[in-house]
Amino acid sequence: MSGFMGEFLGTLVLIVFGVGSGAATNLKGNYARNQNWTFIALAWGLAVTFGVYVAGQFGSQGHLNPAVTIGFAAFGFFPWSQVGGYLLGQFLGAFLGAVIVMIQYYPHFKGARGGAADGNSVGIFATGPAIKNPIFNYLSETIATFFFVFVLLNLGNFTTGLKPLIVGLLIVVVGQTLGGTTGFAINPARDFAPRLAYAILPVPNKGSANWSYAWVPILGPLSGGLIAAAVEALLK
Amino acid sequence: MSGFMGEFLGTLVLIVFGVGSGAATNLKGNYARNQNWTFIALAWGLAVTFGVYVAGQFGSQGHLNPAVTIGFAAFGFFPWSQVGGYLLGQFLGAFLGAVIVMIQYYPHFKGARGGAADGNSVGIFATGPAIKNPIFNYLSETIATFFFVFVLLNLGNFTTGLKPLIVGLLIVVVGQTLGGTTGFAINPARDFAPRLAYAILPVPNKGSANWSYAWVPILGPLSGGLIAAAVEALLK
Amino acid sequence: MSGFMGEFLGTLVLIVFGVGSGAATNLKGNYARNQNWTFIALAWGLAVTFGVYVAGQFGSQGHLNPAVTIGFAAFGFFPWSQVGGYLLGQFLGAFLGAVIVMIQYYPHFKGARGGAADGNSVGIFATGPAIKNPIFNYLSETIATFFFVFVLLNLGNFTTGLKPLIVGLLIVVVGQTLGGTTGFAINPARDFAPRLAYAILPVPNKGSANWSYAWVPILGPLSGGLIAAAVEALLK
Amino acid sequence: MSGFMGEFLGTLVLIVFGVGSGAATNLKGNYARNQNWTFIALAWGLAVTFGVYVAGQFGSQGHLNPAVTIGFAAFGFFPWSQVGGYLLGQFLGAFLGAVIVMIQYYPHFKGARGGAADGNSVGIFATGPAIKNPIFNYLSETIATFFFVFVLLNLGNFTTGLKPLIVGLLIVVVGQTLGGTTGFAINPARDFAPRLAYAILPVPNKGSANWSYAWVPILGPLSGGLIAAAVEALLK
Repeated sequence: MSGFMGEFLGTLVLIVFGVGSGAATNLKGNYARNQNWTFIALAWGLAVTFGVYVAGQFGSQGHLNPAVTIGFAAFGFFPWSQVGGYLLGQFLGAFLGAVIVMIQYYPHFKGARGGAADGNSVGIFATGPAIKNPIFNYLSETIATFFFVFVLLNLGNFTTGLKPLIVGLLIVVVGQTLGGTTGFAINPARDFAPRLAYAILPVPNKGSANWSYAWVPILGPLSGGLIAAAVEALLK
Repeated sequence: MSGFMGEFLGTLVLIVFGVGSGAATNLKGNYARNQNWTFIALAWGLAVTFGVYVAGQFGSQGHLNPAVTIGFAAFGFFPWSQVGGYLLGQFLGAFLGAVIVMIQYYPHFKGARGGAADGNSVGIFATGPAIKNPIFNYLSETIATFFFVFVLLNLGNFTTGLKPLIVGLLIVVVGQTLGGTTGFAINPARDFAPRLAYAILPVPNKGSANWSYAWVPILGPLSGGLIAAAVEALLK
Repeated sequence: MSGFMGEFLGTLVLIVFGVGSGAATNLKGNYARNQNWTFIALAWGLAVTFGVYVAGQFGSQGHLNPAVTIGFAAFGFFPWSQVGGYLLGQFLGAFLGAVIVMIQYYPHFKGARGGAADGNSVGIFATGPAIKNPIFNYLSETIATFFFVFVLLNLGNFTTGLKPLIVGLLIVVVGQTLGGTTGFAINPARDFAPRLAYAILPVPNKGSANWSYAWVPILGPLSGGLIAAAVEALLK
Repeated sequence: MSGFMGEFLGTLVLIVFGVGSGAATNLKGNYARNQNWTFIALAWGLAVTFGVYVAGQFGSQGHLNPAVTIGFAAFGFFPWSQVGGYLLGQFLGAFLGAVIVMIQYYPHFKGARGGAADGNSVGIFATGPAIKNPIFNYLSETIATFFFVFVLLNLGNFTTGLKPLIVGLLIVVVGQTLGGTTGFAINPARDFAPRLAYAILPVPNKGSANWSYAWVPILGPLSGGLIAAAVEALLK
């Protein structure tokens, strides 16, 4: 279970800030409502930055993302023996993060419906496609995750010094430039665990958790991460 | 009184820039009016960055925040003997900062009412809730401060090198993602001292200082800071 | 062919993120539509940052730009023997990048015409003038590239540490302040290869590739890069 | 004349990017028109960052600002013997920078009146007050420059490593939070030389250079710089 605590706490921070940014821009009656896409991309980027800092201090490599952990492991960049603890930490951290965002914005959920893409507040917790097209949505998550993980593999150890800021800025630009199609899950834990939390928790005025789409932000990121690690292993 | 001067000057810089950003976005007839929440979050973040730089050069640790100082002290991350000088410096620096912002924008206060949440210009100086709900407002300040202080405890010495920039970016993301509910005081000195200044000073066209809310941005941040330091002490 | 792989992969990353930002802001029915000029400048800046990181890890200097490679070579800042491999990598990487953006946004190209300057989606792939005036457009690209390359020559080795971030921020400010006239190609490969891809590929609803303007973002950047390197060689 | 070349080139870069940002946001018919105050503050901040990098490579300390040079010299932070060369470089660099911006945007000046505060395009080149009130305008420039220079004095050598970025971010936050009143000249060379260029050059459709205000952004910054250096000398 080495690395569990770091991944748990790091992913908790990631999801509190990241899903928090969705609540901030979508929920009526809060000061940060109606911010733009730069706001979202910047918030998720910094969410990763600080998640990585925290994870690094608690002894993990700061993946915070099964697509990174599995992709790295599959091509020798990470030991398989630690994968279980990492994944468990990622999913539990993401779930708890979603719970905390619900508490933080509880009066706002109560007073108003969310403004997410499918007409209900699931879009605050989980991603959805701008244009429904499962094949291209899957491709889109694969491509975005490929470029995220491939660049990440060329940044060296990313938990020390100012590297977590650079990783955060990588998320910013992936979100800005490849994220408008599907909302850049690029991370199965980031999408699945908050979606599960949304389905289970007493979120006021909640709608469908849109489970029919849930496979895309799981399989797309896993594909992208695997291909990126394969390309890196091939070229280096 | 070791550390007094650093905390005084650092908090002065923090409040001049931070409260200045509130004046900038709210007061009619100035070029920066009507900026968005990213502007506010970025300004407060950089305000902390440069407050920390200045504090560090004058021999303090750059807390600039009683919730940090008291939380750290309560769990052994900071000596109790220095707490008094730190708190005094923080409150005096914040008060003087509010005075300077009033001077800087005096003709703008004179010519126009502010656009703060409660309909008067107190919102430039002190925070207020987007939705009035004392328990959730208190929880919201507690949660936001918890994540601020918990991450801060995992950044190491934060006055040297480029670390003050990272601390500033931490404020940016806390403000973006958890700040829309109560305006992210996350710092009793940042809220109380400028509110007092607003109540006492001859700010043109001023309204109520909204004292009935003032306990929330004092007790919420103190709770969040204490819990964060406790969790850190427990886990490490 | 030393340096080919680095320039190829780096320019691929540059164009996927950069041209991706054009698609993001211009194509209807995606979450990032209608962002502002800061979004564009920031995305291109970070695109360069991560292109440079990747290029550096694969053994090139991270030029990603024929105006840099040729300007440097002409005045002794880079060996002529490597120019061929660099240019080939840059053009192939930029072409493949444009292909990937087309795939990423395929359903969005299908569902809607782009909102580029000349009324069709070529503006997502290649630059065009805000006011058509070939001489001043050429001057504008020359001036913007001069300031980009001249500053670049004073940043030292730009592939290591945090220098790629600084290079990216240089692109941000060049784009913000000198880019509104012609859309800041400042790089022949960035403009020519995606324009060619646009002309050849089955982009849905596509219009003219605007070849009559294509010489400006080739010759302007080359001129600016040459003058910058000449001034640097003269003054140092 | 030691330091002349560095200050000349650095201030040239500063003004091309800085005044360029004013042209970008104000002139009709360019892609960057109508950006917000964050855009302006960010552009001026990065303008300083890259001006400082260039200046440092040509052997100056990267002041780029008579208020810094004179303030530092008056209280022993800089030798008087170099002040002459620094000031000359600053004014000439700023003048040439304004000329280049006029060329860069010539067709845009021709086609449209600027949108500056006083109804003509002087606001692109030089600052003006949001509310005319000479005493408070002077105070406002003094206060803004005080906080700029006082913090600067606590950043150490600011031409090396990533420090120029930090200096640039200092300008961003000063501009955001204290700049909405008078447009944050905080630098006599930045205001006087481009104003002179505007008065002399054949800028199409130009209006008054507003000389009656020109003393404020000269004396205010000088006062603020002197007071800041005095306070630093007193406290350290």
